[in-house]
Parts: sequence; structure tokens; C-alpha cells
Amino acid sequence: MSPDPDAGTGKADQVPESGSGPAATGPKATVGLDPAQLGLGDMDAAAFRRHGYAVIDWIADYLDGVGELPVLAKVAPGQIRDSLPVAPPVAPEPFETALADLDRVLMPGVTHWNHPAFHAYFAITGSGPGILGEALAAALNVNGMLWRTSPSATELEQLVLDWLRQLLGLPEGPRGIICDTASIATTLALAAAREQADVDVRQRGLTGRSDIPLLCVYTSEQAHSSVEKAAIALGLGRDGVRLIGTDPEFRMDTAALAEAIRADVRRGHRPIAIVPTVGTTSTTSVDPVAATADVRDEVAEELGHPVWLHVDGAYGGMLAVCEEHRWVLDGVDRADSFVTNPHKWLFTPIDCSALFVRDADALPRAFALVAEYLTTDDEDVTDYMDWGIQLGRRFRALKLWLVMRYFGAEGLVARIRHHVDQARRVAAWVDEHPDLEVAAPVPMSTVCFRARPRWLAGADEAALGDLNRRLLAGINATGAAYLSHTVLGDRYVLRLAVGNLRTTDERLDATCALIDRELSALRSR
Amino acid sequence: MSPDPDAGTGKADQVPESGSGPAATGPKATVGLDPAQLGLGDMDAAAFRRHGYAVIDWIADYLDGVGELPVLAKVAPGQIRDSLPVAPPVAPEPFETALADLDRVLMPGVTHWNHPAFHAYFAITGSGPGILGEALAAALNVNGMLWRTSPSATELEQLVLDWLRQLLGLPEGPRGIICDTASIATTLALAAAREQADVDVRQRGLTGRSDIPLLCVYTSEQAHSSVEKAAIALGLGRDGVRLIGTDPEFRMDTAALAEAIRADVRRGHRPIAIVPTVGTTSTTSVDPVAATADVRDEVAEELGHPVWLHVDGAYGGMLAVCEEHRWVLDGVDRADSFVTNPHKWLFTPIDCSALFVRDADALPRAFALVAEYLTTDDEDVTDYMDWGIQLGRRFRALKLWLVMRYFGAEGLVARIRHHVDQARRVAAWVDEHPDLEVAAPVPMSTVCFRARPRWLAGADEAALGDLNRRLLAGINATGAAYLSHTVLGDRYVLRLAVGNLRTTDERLDATCALIDRELSALRSR
Repeated sequence: MSPDPDAGTGKADQVPESGSGPAATGPKATVGLDPAQLGLGDMDAAAFRRHGYAVIDWIADYLDGVGELPVLAKVAPGQIRDSLPVAPPVAPEPFETALADLDRVLMPGVTHWNHPAFHAYFAITGSGPGILGEALAAALNVNGMLWRTSPSATELEQLVLDWLRQLLGLPEGPRGIICDTASIATTLALAAAREQADVDVRQRGLTGRSDIPLLCVYTSEQAHSSVEKAAIALGLGRDGVRLIGTDPEFRMDTAALAEAIRADVRRGHRPIAIVPTVGTTSTTSVDPVAATADVRDEVAEELGHPVWLHVDGAYGGMLAVCEEHRWVLDGVDRADSFVTNPHKWLFTPIDCSALFVRDADALPRAFALVAEYLTTDDEDVTDYMDWGIQLGRRFRALKLWLVMRYFGAEGLVARIRHHVDQARRVAAWVDEHPDLEVAAPVPMSTVCFRARPRWLAGADEAALGDLNRRLLAGINATGAAYLSHTVLGDRYVLRLAVGNLRTTDERLDATCALIDRELSALRSR
Repeated sequence: MSPDPDAGTGKADQVPESGSGPAATGPKATVGLDPAQLGLGDMDAAAFRRHGYAVIDWIADYLDGVGELPVLAKVAPGQIRDSLPVAPPVAPEPFETALADLDRVLMPGVTHWNHPAFHAYFAITGSGPGILGEALAAALNVNGMLWRTSPSATELEQLVLDWLRQLLGLPEGPRGIICDTASIATTLALAAAREQADVDVRQRGLTGRSDIPLLCVYTSEQAHSSVEKAAIALGLGRDGVRLIGTDPEFRMDTAALAEAIRADVRRGHRPIAIVPTVGTTSTTSVDPVAATADVRDEVAEELGHPVWLHVDGAYGGMLAVCEEHRWVLDGVDRADSFVTNPHKWLFTPIDCSALFVRDADALPRAFALVAEYLTTDDEDVTDYMDWGIQLGRRFRALKLWLVMRYFGAEGLVARIRHHVDQARRVAAWVDEHPDLEVAAPVPMSTVCFRARPRWLAGADEAALGDLNRRLLAGINATGAAYLSHTVLGDRYVLRLAVGNLRTTDERLDATCALIDRELSALRSR
């Protein structure tokens, strides 16, 4: 794991950029090669075992020692790429050479998301069972596009999604699909909402028509950017997204929501979806989902057409595995769709995003399109390709299944509960610190805070913003922890998210001490 | 690997569906558990090493013996799901128990895409170095959404894409992004085309407007369904996609293309993109890309606005690694975008789809949207989140880099060339068979053929279709090989795709013998 970017990186033996192509030259070096490398087949079983053990050792060592590495990569733009050959190798290289280059060249440029002091964005864990699940899925290499192209992939996907529903305390009923990301899950949900608007978008599209009113989606100004991205992709545009204001605790103002919808209806626009968030990205605030469902019901009745309710619980939805926190999903049973990401707060390597849909036909109505070469005679099966854009579908259920079994429901609950406790511990420390202040409620595992030191009493927001920017840069430059930021109103604040399984209380205390040191250093400068 | 669905599947110790929730009961069984399972952390290093070695052994054995398994799963719908507990386990389970259930319960329901006789759809390989690359990527668990969230992920992605460009013999210039699937890559490309139409879709959307003509995309009737899916997602609708006819060899008729475009322009519609295919899914036919580029240039000049040229080489583009087959990419240097999938014919586990774009700003123009919490001070870097819909981005470049280094350019060329040879071998055998006929040219590694037996001389297409359906069902029911089908004109034909690294000539001969046997059996019935 010793970073040494100057060490040999196999720059010899490359395809010359202007050369006559890879096929023109013969093999040059066979030292250290597996016999199969020079043939026409794959790595053979003996070589796979040898290299596989080495990779397992590498990972075990990495996970054991990741906490000692600088969490945020300190490289200049282009540095990593410039350390690697500009052309691909002509001849095969020993697997060991590439693995050594991973250490020597790539690792200095890796920002360690699996690090116990990664507190930026949302803190996540690619856990042991999840990593091994990814390896198994890659070996099977199935594409679960149709039920028959791997019945176990489709049926395990259905099963683990139902397990997840039970873990979250949601009632029976919804059907699910595992997407790569919540960005795609929300795109699919809003596509279903768009199709429900009854203007036959799937067949006729939205262009060349004058019969389509402005289709509007409502979310809060604290919502994730993926809602707007989905609207862009779907042809609703940023103008089709209404960002509703929030209360002082950053929760959607449902009176403002109802008002915005009615104002749009008066203008002849058509509300098609409302997207409350359970655990916003900036502060993990929880929109009042049940109240948005009330608004939805009222509006839908007035309009005489349905309005889709999609709940974005990408991070925060998972909190509901703890019974005492299950209030965060109040009202989700009334939603048309709900997304929550096991790759965020359920210890599953990215990517794995669970989308639940109340009406199992809604996504196929928006997307189903079966080419002749994809037809089968199978009846009463789910062909997941009909549920979305992507035809290629990895066997993502496998890693989630292994994670759920390895930790068990109790273990998952205990770990998530612990992360909430850890965040509260940090918040309590901030509260007690004379020069820091908590900037938002802490319902989950993320603490928003900022420096407001006594020695800058009376400073304006610009000066405080500047100070906090420098504080964040100072903390992150140490490599000992990685925090991110957001802006709340006119306040620039730091975010410290907890969620990695290697984050001990001691490590968290050390990070608090680091914050304190960096703040003191700013005073003396 | 012995399938035994009746063996114990850990049905005890489950969360009762109507129970009081996972947190209510204490741990029950700790036999065989790792110490860390009962704590708050991840699988520890010692346990990871032990389970990791077991997984490596499992994979080595699997890949060594996969050719002996039934390639197409023979289970009834629901059978796999019904073999597994309806509720998640309350207490943690030993990793070994889950791995045993993979064998006992799941494997009988796996269709083996990594099988040497998987000849359906496109035959692919999750190769040894690629599988290990997935494990490493899952351990690092980085999200390459921003350059700074893992500089090595972004820069290795840029590097391997440029390596791939060189392998394909394409000129310098295009920039790339690794997508999950070609379905998404084509969606992004057509979104860029849509944005280029100069009606400000990103901001204003397509709804509530009467100023937007019908935006049209042109592809052939042999194109992949992903083009229509992308059009559905983007709000262009199926009506916005013009399926151009093909010549007798299933290549886009460019005269018909030009005519269709001009007819649309006369009607006031606006052509925004042309999507030729290099390696269509049914027959691997290659559209004349250069001729479509000529049409594009002429039309764009007449219209006075650009028309996007997107080349779908998801499978077939990879053939260009062989110099003698590089003609398949003639004209691609004039395209605005080009997609080809390392997870199809470059031995990389799914998912890994390479999208090249001539104008590096085209995708950000269509998609960039930076939330405050995602802003950085980094300059002159690529933040890939700006290039598409998905914010979460796995470190897919790592596996592709390992594959390229392990096999080397020469090794990749030799293997792809070999697959083409193998397909020709099958085609030659079909040609010589008195009761079979090749149904389309074989430029790549896929053979379309059908039975037209002497004993059914004079039979109509319905009877021949029925026979070939039964032939396909007979072959697939044996479990010894898995083929798929398509329909060409009014002819139902079988497809045999080559592309797995474990497919030996002997195995292919055995599959031919199987086809012959199954056909004979149909005669005697």
C-alpha cells in the first residue's frame, strides 16, 4: 500500500500511438504470466485462485488499515493519469504488476469512502459480505433483463426487496425493483407520473404537440438535485419543477405546496407529482409525507386526475429499520413510489437503490417495449427490463441478500441506531463548544454545524462564511477526516455525516478534537 | 455446487411477518458466527480473509465446472422465491450458511451467462481479471461523482477510455464516460441531441409549449430497442423514432433515410439525430455509418442546424480491435457520439459501457446541475456527475483496466478474432448441412440460421416457423446449450452467438451435433 508514484508502471511495451496496431508485434515478455494469458481462454482456475487470494489479502489489509490513510486524496489534477502509460500494453502483463500499480499509482489518488473518518456527503460502508457478494455476482455475470435469463436474479430481487419492506415496517403490497442509483429510481418514478398524466407520452412523446399543458413536479428547495435531473431527462425541464419553501427546520411547507399547486392549476398547468424527501441531503430534514399525501388527495380530487406521490428516502428511509425512528416513514404507505438506497445506509457497496411502486403495472406502462429477439413464452413472470430504461441488469440482489443475512435484522438495527447515537454525540459536543453551533436539527446521522467564535462576535455572514470555508479546508487538508459543506439560507455550514462501520467513538472524538485544533489555528493566523 | 433445493435454508429464526419487529428479540444463535457479527462493526480482517478465500474457491470451482451445468435454468416461476424464507433473519447468520444456500437454493435458478455454451443474445464473459476488479472496486467503494471524490476513478476512467479508443483504431479527440449500460449511453447521447435542437429543453422542458416541432430520431428497423426506450424516456415518444428500412443484408437503407428526413422536414418536423448500428442485435449487420454521416451533413446544411450522429456499436464496435475488421467503424470518426460495451465483447463483467463524445461540453450542456452541497473549488477537472443523469458512479474503470492489462492488446485481438473464426466455423457447418440454412451474413460472431429440412420441402413460413420454434425449445431444454431467436422479415430464425472465453472448438462442435440431433428428433416425432 506504499504510495510511490515514481516506481515503474510498466511504461515499456506499449502500443505506439502512431504504430501499426496491436496485432503487428509479437509477445515480448512472458515472465510471471499465467499459461492461459498467452492462449485464447480466460484466467484458469489455478491462476484465479492465486490472484484471488492475493486480492482478498489486499482487501483485508486495506480495510484493516484504511483508517490510517489520508481520507481525501491530495493529488493535483492530471497527476494520476500522467503516472500511467498513454497507450495500452501490447502484450499481456502479469496480474501482480497491475495489482502493484494499484498501490503505487492509483491509491494516492483515491478518496477513501470506506474510511472511518469519511464524513462528507453521506458516510457509507462497502461491507465485507457486500464486497464478497459483488465478486460472486461478477463471476455469475448474469443479466437479469428477463426472468428466464436468470430466474434466481429476478426472484431474489423480489425477495430481498420484500425483506427490506418488512425491515422498514411498511405494510405489504408494494412491488420493487433494484436500480443502480436513486437518480434513476426517481427518473423512473417521474416517468410513471408523466405517463399517468394521460397524454400518452410513451407513444406520442411531448414534441410537436400543442395539447400538453405544463406538467409540474413539486419538491422542496432542500430536495436532492436528482429530482431536477430527472425532470431534465424526462423533458419536463427545470421550469417544470417547483421548489417549495421550507420551515425553519428545513421541512417542506405543505401550505405553500397546496398554494403552489392551486396557482399552477389556475394558470392551466397540470400537477403530475409531488416528491417529499425523508432525509434531505443538506440537513437530513424529513418532509411531512402524510401532509403532502393529504394535499395530493385533495388536489387529485379537485382535478379529477391522479397526482403521483414519490418519496425520496435515498438515505434517510433506512432509519426506519429502527422502530423508535419509524416515524420518518409516516405516510409512505400512501405514496405511489418510494426509493431508499441500501448502498447508502445499509452497508451494501454501490450501486444498489431500492424502488418500491404501489402499482406494479405503472413502470411497464411507461416503459415496456419488447423487441422480437427478447420475446419469451414465459407467463406470470416479471421481466424487469419492462420496468425501466436499462436492459442490462446486474445481479445486485445477491450482495444485499448476503448483507442482510450476515448482519441479521438485529445487527442492522443496532448499527444504524449506533450511528444516530454517534451523530448525537457529535452534536452534543458542538453544542457545548463555545465557538461552534449546531446549524440544523439532527434527526439522523448527519450534523450540520459551523464556527461562530467568540473572537468574531458580531461578524457578518460573509466573514463567518469565509471562516467556515477555511475551517473546512483546514480539516480536509490534514487527511485525517473529510467533511463537506452546504449553505442553509445565507449560512455556510459544515456537514459531518456518520455511517461507516469502522467509525469508532474514539475516532469520532479524535475528529472533534481535530475540528477544535483547526479552529484554534485559524484564530492565531 | 450440488443443487438441492430441499436442504435446509435457514427458515428458522425469521422475523415473523406480523411480529413486533426485529429489535424486539435477542440474539439466538451464535454458532459459527464471526466475533464482529455481534458487535457494531464490519466483518473483521481475519473473517474477511477466511470467507474471501472461500468465495475465491467457490468462483474458481464455478468457472472451472460451469460448462457442466445446465446453461438455461429449468425452474418454474416462483420456485426459487418459494425456497427462501419469507422474512429476513432476525439474528446474524454464519457467512457459510448463506454461501451454502447460494449453491443449494439459488444455483438451480441461475441461467449461466458465463457458460461456454451460452449462445443466446450476445455471448459474454465475466473474465478472471474483471471479476477481481469488481471485488476491488467494491472494497474501495468510491463514488466518482466529482473528480475530488476520487481523482483516480475519474482519471483512470479517462485513461482506459483513451486506451480503448486506440485499440479500436479511432483518431484522437473524443472524450468519454463509462456508463452502466448502452441503454443509458444512448439516452445521454440523444439528450445531447435534443439539447442541440436549440429549444432549451434543459431549462424549459418540452411541455406547455407550442413552439416545438416534432423532434425526430432516425434509426433502422433492425436497431436495438434501447433507441426507442431512450426516446420514450426523453419525451420524444415512439412516434418520434423513424425506423428506416434495410437492404437485404439488414443494413440501413441510406436513400430511404435521406427521403424520410426530407419528408419530415417538409411536414415541419425537426430531425435531431441519426442512430446507425454497428452490429445489430438480430444479425450483427453493420449500417453504412459513413453514408449516414453524408446524409447528416447534407441535411444539416440544408436545415442550417446540426443533426447529431450517434453510433450504436454496443456489441459490434469492439470488432474493430482487429485491424482486418476495422472497416466496421468506417465513418465513426464523423459521429458526435459512439457507444461500445466492454461488458459485451471485451471480457469485462457487466456493467461497463463506453460512451465517446466528440464535443466534451455536449453532455454537461444537457445535464449539468450543481447543488450547493456538491460544489468544489477544483478547477480544470472533469466532474462526471455533470455528464449524465446518475450522481452515483461506481469505479468501473478499474475492472476494465485490469482486463486490458491482463490480456494485453494482442490477447484481446487474438480472442475476438478467434470468436469470429468460431462463428464462421458454425456458419460453414450450417451451410453444409442439408437441412439447415444460414439466414443472414456473418460479419461478426453471431450466426442466424434456421432449419429448412428436405422432409418439409415446400412448407410455408408458418410451418417452418413452428418447426424452428420447436427446434429452439428442444435445444434449450437439454441444458447443454442456450440459443435465442429473432424474426427476419417473415422468417423465424435461431441465433447462435459466440463470445465466451471458455467456448472451445470442441464444445462448439458438440453444440452443432446437438442441433443436428434435435432436428432429427423433430422429424421422427
